[in-house]
Amino acid sequence: MPRLALLAAALFACCAHAAPKETRIPAPALEAAAQLRERALADATAWQVTESLTTEIGPRLAGSEADARAVAWAQAKFRELGFDKVWTEPVTFPKWERRAESAQVLGPHAQPLAVTALGGSPGGTVEGEVVRFADLAALEAAPEGSLAGKIAFVDYRMEAARDGRGYGPGGAVRSRGPSLAIRKGAAGFLMRSAGTDSHRLPHTGITRFDEGLEPVPSAALANPDADQLARLLERGPVRVRLALDCGWDGTYTSYNVIGEITGRSRPQEVVLLGAHLDSWDLGTGAVDDAAGIGITMAAAHLIRQMPRRPARSIRVVAYANEEQGLLGGRAYAERHAGEAARHVLAAESDFGAGRVYAFNTGAPEHARKATEQIAQALAPLGIEYAPGEGGPGPDIGPLAARGVTWAWLAQDGSDYFHLHHTADDTLDKVDPEALAQNGAAWAVFAWLAAEAEGDFGSHVATPAR
Amino acid sequence: MPRLALLAAALFACCAHAAPKETRIPAPALEAAAQLRERALADATAWQVTESLTTEIGPRLAGSEADARAVAWAQAKFRELGFDKVWTEPVTFPKWERRAESAQVLGPHAQPLAVTALGGSPGGTVEGEVVRFADLAALEAAPEGSLAGKIAFVDYRMEAARDGRGYGPGGAVRSRGPSLAIRKGAAGFLMRSAGTDSHRLPHTGITRFDEGLEPVPSAALANPDADQLARLLERGPVRVRLALDCGWDGTYTSYNVIGEITGRSRPQEVVLLGAHLDSWDLGTGAVDDAAGIGITMAAAHLIRQMPRRPARSIRVVAYANEEQGLLGGRAYAERHAGEAARHVLAAESDFGAGRVYAFNTGAPEHARKATEQIAQALAPLGIEYAPGEGGPGPDIGPLAARGVTWAWLAQDGSDYFHLHHTADDTLDKVDPEALAQNGAAWAVFAWLAAEAEGDFGSHVATPAR
Repeated sequence: MPRLALLAAALFACCAHAAPKETRIPAPALEAAAQLRERALADATAWQVTESLTTEIGPRLAGSEADARAVAWAQAKFRELGFDKVWTEPVTFPKWERRAESAQVLGPHAQPLAVTALGGSPGGTVEGEVVRFADLAALEAAPEGSLAGKIAFVDYRMEAARDGRGYGPGGAVRSRGPSLAIRKGAAGFLMRSAGTDSHRLPHTGITRFDEGLEPVPSAALANPDADQLARLLERGPVRVRLALDCGWDGTYTSYNVIGEITGRSRPQEVVLLGAHLDSWDLGTGAVDDAAGIGITMAAAHLIRQMPRRPARSIRVVAYANEEQGLLGGRAYAERHAGEAARHVLAAESDFGAGRVYAFNTGAPEHARKATEQIAQALAPLGIEYAPGEGGPGPDIGPLAARGVTWAWLAQDGSDYFHLHHTADDTLDKVDPEALAQNGAAWAVFAWLAAEAEGDFGSHVATPAR
Repeated sequence: MPRLALLAAALFACCAHAAPKETRIPAPALEAAAQLRERALADATAWQVTESLTTEIGPRLAGSEADARAVAWAQAKFRELGFDKVWTEPVTFPKWERRAESAQVLGPHAQPLAVTALGGSPGGTVEGEVVRFADLAALEAAPEGSLAGKIAFVDYRMEAARDGRGYGPGGAVRSRGPSLAIRKGAAGFLMRSAGTDSHRLPHTGITRFDEGLEPVPSAALANPDADQLARLLERGPVRVRLALDCGWDGTYTSYNVIGEITGRSRPQEVVLLGAHLDSWDLGTGAVDDAAGIGITMAAAHLIRQMPRRPARSIRVVAYANEEQGLLGGRAYAERHAGEAARHVLAAESDFGAGRVYAFNTGAPEHARKATEQIAQALAPLGIEYAPGEGGPGPDIGPLAARGVTWAWLAQDGSDYFHLHHTADDTLDKVDPEALAQNGAAWAVFAWLAAEAEGDFGSHVATPAR
C-alpha cells in the first residue's frame, strides 16, 4: 500500500469513526419558529408570487422568448422581496420548440385525436397502422422489426397516489418508449399520457432517444383519446396520421436566478431552497413550478422579516430548464462543486401546490435530533416526521450526488398528475390556503436549519458516474 | 263579426267547455311497467348505443363528412335494434365550418389564450385593445362607437345548477353579445365560455348576428383564460390578436332519422321520443347528445321486447342539426304539421347523461291523473312528480308550438355545463348506471303513454309567429 493511500485510509478511519458532535437547534430559535409559522400561515406572499409569475410571464418554455422574461422577472421579484443579494448564473442547453401538432384517425371512423409532442421529439408526419401495447413490457416483448412502418401505441394507465409513485412507471413509458419502439421498427410513437385526469389535454414531457437511433415523431394522447383509440382498435385495424412540427434548434443560454438572505453569524453557510423557473409551454406552469417559486421566495422573505437574521444564509435558487433534464440543477452543482460542505441542507419544492404532509432529511445520525426538532416544529401544520422516507427534489439530485444533504417536504400530489405538463396547469388550480401552509412549512424548516448548531452531514463527495 | 269568425268562436266554445273524458292508464299496463323498469335497469343498450355513436362516428358537426356517416349509422342502429320502420326525412341548412383558431396576448405579457370560435362566426384576424365588461348589461351600457377598433370581452361567469338555469344568462352572452358589441363599434368579440368548469377547453355554440350588421370574429375563452385576461387587464391595457379561420360555406342536406315500433291497436298514434344526432365538432358529443340517442333508442328497443306491443306506436326521432338552431326539430314539425293530434306525447332527451330526477307533462287537466300514474311508476327510480314545472326539449319546441303535448324527464345537469360544447364531451364522462336509469325512465314513460286510454291534449294548433 503506497504511503498516500495509507494516509488516506488513516484519515478516513479517523473521520468515519470520530463521533461528530450532535447537531441541536437552540430553544430561542424554536420559539421564534412558532411565531414564524403563525405569521406565515396568514401571509399571502407565496400566492402573490405565484400569481405574478403565471400571469405576467405565462408559459415559459426553456429557450423561448418567455424564458428571458422569466429570468428578468425573478431578479426583480427577489429585489422587491428584500433579498440581500441577487445574481444569475448561466445555463446553456439545446433549444427545443413546439410549433404545431395534430393526429387523426383515418378511414371509416375518421376523427381527430388530441395529442401533444413529447419534448425532444423530431417533427414530421407519419401515417400508419397503430399497434397497441398494454405497457412497456409488452412493447419490449414485440419481435424485432415487427413494427416496421407502424405506429406503436403504449396504452399504460398511470395511477394517482398522494406520493406520486405512479409517475415512475408512467414516466418510464415516455422516457423509454420511443427508443424501444424504434428498435422494433416503428415509424412513430404514441402513448397514453402519463397523467391521471380524463380531460382532452395531453401531457407532454421530455423524452430521450438512445444514441445511434433515428428519432421518430413521438407524442402523447390525452386520456380520453387513448380510450377512444383503444376502443377503435377493438373493432379492427386503425390507421392514424400523426403530424408534428417541432424539434431542436441550436443552443440557448438561460440563467439560474439566485436570491440570498445573508446570515448574521455564518453567512458563508447556506440553506438552499430551490424551485424551477421554467415550465412546459402548454400551461402557465402554475403547479409546475410557479408554486414552488412562490413557496420558496415567500419562505425566505418571511425569514428576512424576522427581528433577527438567521445564523446562516438562506439561498433561493430559481433553476433554469428543469423540464428538459435538470439543466439548471446540474449547472449549479457543477459550479458549486467544491462548496458542498457550505450547503448545510438543500431542498426543492417541485411537486405542485398541495399541502405538505411529511418531512425528513437525508442527514446522518448525529443530526437526527435536529431533524426531529424541525419535524416537531412542523407538526402543528399537519406534517408528520417520516424517517427513512424521501429524497432530494429533481434539481437537488446533482447537489446531493456531490455530498449535500437533502431535506424533503412531501406535498400531497393526489391531483398533481391531473395537471402536470398539460395546458390545464394554470393558477385556478392553486389553493391559496394550501400555498400558505407550504410557505409556513418552508419558512420554519429553513429558519431552523439556518439556526442549527452543528451540521447536517454535508461534505464534498464525488458523484458516481 | 263575420260568419266564419262566429263559427270559429262557437266551435272553440264547444271544445273548450266540453269536459273531455279523463285519461287513465289501465292496471295491466302499470304492472307491465314495473317489470319493464327492472329489466331496463339491468340493460346495457343505452350505453352500447352511446359507445357506438361516439366511438365509430366521433364528432359529427352538422354538414360535415361525419354528419352523413352518423345518418347511415342511425339507420343501421335502428334496424339492428329491431325497429319495425326506419326512414329519413331531409333537413337542409347552411353549412358552417371551423378550420383553425387561435388567440394571443401581445406585448410584454405575450402568451397564448385558449379560444374557440362561436358557431356562425366569420373568419378573420383582428388585433386590438381588449375592453372588459362584467356582463351583457355592462356591454349594453357602453356608449355607441366606444369600442371602435377594439375587442369586446364579456367576462360573465355562468353558475352551475342541477336544472341548468345558469345557461339562460350564460347562453345569452353568446347569442346576443356579438351583435351588441358590433353596435358599439367592436372589431372582435370575446366571451368567457358559457360553462362551469375550469379547464383549458373553451365552449363553443351557435351565435347569430342581427340583420344589417357586419359580423366580426367572435370566440369564447376557456374559463382559466378568461381569468388570465381579467388579471392582465387589472395590470393595464392588453392587446390581443384573435385569428379565426371558419365560416359559412353553402348549404347541406342532412336527415332526421326516424325509427318506429308499430303499435298493436292504434298504430297511427305515436309517442315521440327525440334526441339529436349531430354534435359540435370539438368533442365526440357524448353527453350532447349521444346519450340522448342511446336513451331513447334503448327505451323503444326495451318496449319492443315486451310480450305485447304497446297500443300506440313508439317513434324515436334522431334529429339533424339541433346545434345550429333546431333545424331538424323545425323540419319535423313543419312536415308533420297536420298530425299534432296523432302525436300523443313528445319528449326529448338532450340534457346530458345525469340521472332523471323529475317528471311532468304539459297535459291539460283531463290527463292529470294519467300524468300522475306515470310519475308513480317512475318514483322507484328516484324521480319525483313536478307539477307546474318543465317544458319541451329543444327539438320538441316547434312541435309543442303546433299543439303537441310535451313530456319532461328532468336530468341532473350539475356537471352538464362542465362539458357542454367542449372537447371534453367524451364517453368517459358518461356513467353507465345513470344511463340505464335514464333508459328505464324513458321506457316506462313511453310505454305508459302508449297504453293510456284517452289523450294528453295534443291538438292541431297554429304556432305563434
